[in-house]
Amino acid sequence: MYKVNVGKKILSANEEFALSNKRFFAERKKMCLNMISSPGSGKTTILAKTISELKGKINIGVIEGDIQTDLDAKRIRATGAAAVQINTDGACHLSAVQVADALQNLPIAQLDLVFIENVGNLVCPSVFELGENDKVVVLSVAEGDDKPAKYPAIFAKSKVLLINKIDLLDAVGATDFNIERVKADVLNLNKNISIFPVSAKTGQGLADWYDWLVTSVRNLQT
Amino acid sequence: MYKVNVGKKILSANEEFALSNKRFFAERKKMCLNMISSPGSGKTTILAKTISELKGKINIGVIEGDIQTDLDAKRIRATGAAAVQINTDGACHLSAVQVADALQNLPIAQLDLVFIENVGNLVCPSVFELGENDKVVVLSVAEGDDKPAKYPAIFAKSKVLLINKIDLLDAVGATDFNIERVKADVLNLNKNISIFPVSAKTGQGLADWYDWLVTSVRNLQT
Repeated sequence: MYKVNVGKKILSANEEFALSNKRFFAERKKMCLNMISSPGSGKTTILAKTISELKGKINIGVIEGDIQTDLDAKRIRATGAAAVQINTDGACHLSAVQVADALQNLPIAQLDLVFIENVGNLVCPSVFELGENDKVVVLSVAEGDDKPAKYPAIFAKSKVLLINKIDLLDAVGATDFNIERVKADVLNLNKNISIFPVSAKTGQGLADWYDWLVTSVRNLQT
Repeated sequence: MYKVNVGKKILSANEEFALSNKRFFAERKKMCLNMISSPGSGKTTILAKTISELKGKINIGVIEGDIQTDLDAKRIRATGAAAVQINTDGACHLSAVQVADALQNLPIAQLDLVFIENVGNLVCPSVFELGENDKVVVLSVAEGDDKPAKYPAIFAKSKVLLINKIDLLDAVGATDFNIERVKADVLNLNKNISIFPVSAKTGQGLADWYDWLVTSVRNLQT
């Protein structure tokens, strides 16, 4: 059995940049949310819809993390919002220093809220703080309702869980995805989490998520 | 900007164990497949169905990789097959040394084929060889058809792509998942990959996957 003891050192370097990012947001009274999920849970679709619907209420900018391509940043820019793409070049999560660099390219004075869309990965991004106020985890109905039990860390650390693609609930079937089971499992890991079942495609359930966002931003600004 | 140059060293230690595992399988003429996907693409359901359907034709054992819980190993054992659970305790991929340990607890003489079900993660497991003959990547229709472009490494390295949950195609819609687009993108990355659109739930399309498995095992044994 071999062990390489570098975990602590990497985290500490990352934590320094995360603290600096946190100060950056706090000094300017800007909110930052770190969005984490498996690939294909619908993060970008949720963001694009949220930006469009909240236009005129809160101004949103996005830092997009991807291993390759700028497909997601293009989808965000199509809404008219500012988006900065980070390509991790194979790495499985965003780091705080990458976010610090990206912040230099966002028109921060005009924004109320910065979303960081992390690399699609339910595991590694949960360990690396980026300086965000809170984490938002997205779980798609099609992934199955056993995911909080199997990947507990991110559910334990998040402030909000968006259960997305509820338009697929009938097609997936209640045996494979029982919303009440998910709620119970997640609240068992984290009693302070807000859970919103939504469909980014049909818009169902998104009003509660928008209310949560607007209230959180206003609370931070006053 | 900081850099920690440990990637090479970790890979080399892992590669030694991977080579030793490869010899282990080759000496015994056993086949080993490393199954990789996002969380919730249906790996365990595919395996359980495959084991049941091929009973009497080829004997299958499973090494289950999970961050926590033994939910998946229990699902495999319910089919009557031997399954060894590895809990990675937070780590985002299986390593070859963990597989070497697990192999000691499988009744290898009775088996034709060992499946390794990796941790649900489309990124990290693609980098760590485990000593397998081939990789099998699973993509669920509900994840969207842009995943090969966004996570190319695992599609470039795999011998088989199972496009799972085709029973959800109508509910997801052709705008979000176009099978022909996926096939074209994946073949562009890897012209030697075999692509099987399947539904582990309804059984649709699985016959071709079973044929591929039986033929591959027989070729290796003769």
